[in-house]
Amino acid sequence: MCEANVYVEKDGHVDLLLESVYLIESEGDRWHLENIFGEQKVLRGTFKVLALSEDKIVLQEVEAD
Amino acid sequence: MCEANVYVEKDGHVDLLLESVYLIESEGDRWHLENIFGEQKVLRGTFKVLALSEDKIVLQEVEAD
Repeated sequence: MCEANVYVEKDGHVDLLLESVYLIESEGDRWHLENIFGEQKVLRGTFKVLALSEDKIVLQEVEAD
Repeated sequence: MCEANVYVEKDGHVDLLLESVYLIESEGDRWHLENIFGEQKVLRGTFKVLALSEDKIVLQEVEAD
């Protein structure tokens, strides 16, 4: 088992959203994240990159309508 | 560093697309995959789930226009 840190890109900045994520589910542009500590976050966005060599996943946030 | 096996769901079936993937990049609905053996694949589809507890990522293939 491994985990990845999920970063969010918004307005040209890339910030850590949730660390040690092991589960991501997507429904349209909604991303449900869960980490090994039981923390959950939901983000509206698009997928950009997964780089497991750096334990990193980057999502891009979209503005709410 | 860890890797995940990427599966594709199509017509109700889930099949292994590429094993030991460490890099995924998305451009719209195009998914570029690369594994630790240097193999690359491109798929048109949408993201469904990443479950690192099972070293598994599932994409859903979309039909070409």
